[in-house]
Amino acid sequence: MTVEPLLWRQHRLWLLDQTELPRRVRYFTPDNYRQVIAAIRRLSVRGAPLIGIAAAYGLAQEAQRLTGSRNIRKRLLRAAVALAAARPTAVNLSWAIQRLAAILNDHRIPESELAARLEQEATVIHQEERTRSMKLGALGNKLIPANARIMTICNAGRLAAPGFGTALAPVYLAHQQGKQPTVYVPETRPLLQGARLTAWELSNAGIPVVLLTDSMVSLLMPEIDLILVGADRIAANGDAANKVGTYQLSLLAHHFHRPFYVVAPVSTFDFKAGSARDIPIEERSARELQYCGKWRVAPKGISYHNPAFDVTPAKFITGIITDAGILYPPYRRAFATLRRRLRAFR
Amino acid sequence: MTVEPLLWRQHRLWLLDQTELPRRVRYFTPDNYRQVIAAIRRLSVRGAPLIGIAAAYGLAQEAQRLTGSRNIRKRLLRAAVALAAARPTAVNLSWAIQRLAAILNDHRIPESELAARLEQEATVIHQEERTRSMKLGALGNKLIPANARIMTICNAGRLAAPGFGTALAPVYLAHQQGKQPTVYVPETRPLLQGARLTAWELSNAGIPVVLLTDSMVSLLMPEIDLILVGADRIAANGDAANKVGTYQLSLLAHHFHRPFYVVAPVSTFDFKAGSARDIPIEERSARELQYCGKWRVAPKGISYHNPAFDVTPAKFITGIITDAGILYPPYRRAFATLRRRLRAFR
Repeated sequence: MTVEPLLWRQHRLWLLDQTELPRRVRYFTPDNYRQVIAAIRRLSVRGAPLIGIAAAYGLAQEAQRLTGSRNIRKRLLRAAVALAAARPTAVNLSWAIQRLAAILNDHRIPESELAARLEQEATVIHQEERTRSMKLGALGNKLIPANARIMTICNAGRLAAPGFGTALAPVYLAHQQGKQPTVYVPETRPLLQGARLTAWELSNAGIPVVLLTDSMVSLLMPEIDLILVGADRIAANGDAANKVGTYQLSLLAHHFHRPFYVVAPVSTFDFKAGSARDIPIEERSARELQYCGKWRVAPKGISYHNPAFDVTPAKFITGIITDAGILYPPYRRAFATLRRRLRAFR
Repeated sequence: MTVEPLLWRQHRLWLLDQTELPRRVRYFTPDNYRQVIAAIRRLSVRGAPLIGIAAAYGLAQEAQRLTGSRNIRKRLLRAAVALAAARPTAVNLSWAIQRLAAILNDHRIPESELAARLEQEATVIHQEERTRSMKLGALGNKLIPANARIMTICNAGRLAAPGFGTALAPVYLAHQQGKQPTVYVPETRPLLQGARLTAWELSNAGIPVVLLTDSMVSLLMPEIDLILVGADRIAANGDAANKVGTYQLSLLAHHFHRPFYVVAPVSTFDFKAGSARDIPIEERSARELQYCGKWRVAPKGISYHNPAFDVTPAKFITGIITDAGILYPPYRRAFATLRRRLRAFR
C-alpha cells in the first residue's frame, strides 16, 4: 500500500491530512491559498520539499480561481508572499514560490495565460523533487550495508517529499534490493511524526521498525550502523536545520562514533545563510507540549520551550547526501564545487 | 497547596492516583494487598521511596484484614513476597518489605500482635524516609547557587517520596531560602511524569518551571547550572538506575561539562549489586508508546523498545547526594566508608 501525501488531479490540489495519521487516511481539497497556508501551518502537509510543492500548486490553483479578475498579478503576488511566509524554517518553500513569482513578474506573459504557466511550473517542481528523491535513494543506498540498523528522526520519507522521500529514500532502495534494513525510529515529540508517520509508512512498505522514545536514543545507539536524517535548510558552512532533536541525535552519534548523514535535495540548500545564525527557527505553540491529542498533560502557569527545529553543527555531520552527489567536510569547499555545477540551476 | 501522595489514616492506606494528574486530584483506598500491587504496577503510586512505603502499609493493612484467620504468618509472607516483586528495579521496595518480613519471621511475636507491629514498622519507615528527604534537601541545597537553573528528569519530588522528595528536596529548600531557582523539566516520555507531576508540583509551590521535550535537553543544557536526578537503585560501583532517559541526560551533561548529581536516600543503595549488570530493568508494555492517553499514535505491526529505566554509569556522576553525606568518586571507596557508618542500619 502506498499513500501519496499530495495529489494534483484535474487542476485541483488534494492533500492527505497527516495530522490524522495513523488513525485515518483522509484527503481534503483547499479552496483557496489561505486554506493551503492553514494546512501548512497546522502540519496537515509537512516536510520541507512537500510544503514547497503544496504552496506552488496552491498558488497555481489561486490563479485559476482569480482568472478574469482585476489586478490578478498583484493579487497573486500578495498570495505568493503569504504562502512563502507560511512557515519560516524550510527554505524549499520560499525557493518554490520564487520560481512561480518569476512568472508573475514576467509581463510578457498575458494575464490569461498565468494560471496555465503557474500550473506547469508547479508540476515541473513536483517532478524535479521526485527525480531528486530517486537520486538521493540511489546515492545513499551505496552507504547501506546488508542488515543495516539505521536510525532516523521525525519523518523524511514518502510523506515528506515526493517519490521515496529524502532520508528514507536510501532505505526504500536498500529494502527493494533485499538488504533487509531495520529502522529505529524515535517517536519525535511533541507531534510524534516518528511514531505516527515514519513507523506507519515504513511498516506499510514491509520494512521492520523499532519505535523508541526520544530519551532512549543513547541506549540504542551502540546497536546502530548509521543515522540518516532530513533537513529543512542547510547553510553555506554545512550547518543543517531539521526537526528539533536532530542536534541531540547528532551529539549522541558523535559520542558513539556512528556515521551521521544529512539527506537533502539541493532545493534545501541556502547559500545566502552563512551559518546556523542565519537560519530562522520557528517557535510553535505551547499547546503542543500541554496536550497529547486531547489529553491535557501539563499544568497551567508554567513556561514552555517549543522550537520546531534545531540546527546540527557541521562538525557533527559525517556527510551530506544530495541529489548532486555526497558531500564531505570541509563543506564550504564542497559547496563551492556544487554551486559551480548548479549555476544554471539557480 | 500541598498534596500528599500517600496517607495513613485510621489504619487505612489512602493513595493519590498519580495517573490522573494534573487533571484531577483523587484518592483511593486499596482493599487488599493485591490492589496495592496493582496500584504500584499501573504507577498510581510511584517513586522508589514511595512504593516501598505503600507496600509496607499495604502489608500492615493486609495483616489487619487477616487477623484471626488461620495460617496468618504464611499468608502474610506470601503477600510480602508478591508485594516485593510488584516492580523489579527500585530496591526500596524489597528493602522495606524485608523489614516487615523480619517481624513476620520472629516467632516470639504472637499472631494477635502482628498487625500492630507491622503497622508500627511501616510508620517508622515512612517517618525515616521523611527525615531522609529533609537531610537530602539540606545537603543538596548547599550546592545550589542563587538564581540557579536546575535540570531534572521524571519526578523525584513530593509525589515520589515523603517530605520534599529526593532530587527536588534541595530545590524546595533553596526556594524557601529565597534563592529563586528555576527548574527545567524534560516531559519524560512515555508516561510524561515530568510534565504531569514535576511541573505540577513545582508550580503549585510557586517555583518557576520551564517544560521541554526530551529531545531539547541538549539545546538547553548550555543554560543549566546543575542537574539533579533521583535513583531507583544504586550499585556498589556507583552505577545508578533511574527513569529511562537519565543515562542520555548524563551523557549530555558530560558533553557540556555540567555537574550531574544523583540524589537518593541510603535506602536506594544496593551493595549486593556490583554494577549496572546486576540491576534488573523492568520492560513495560508497548501500549505506553502506542498511545498518548486515548490517542493512538503508533501503528500496529512494529516493534517497540520500552524499558522503564536505564543505568547511568558512575563515570558520568559528579556526586551522589545521600542523607548520610555527599559522596564523590571513587565511589567504591566512598561506599565502603558509608557502609561502615551504616552497619547498625542494615
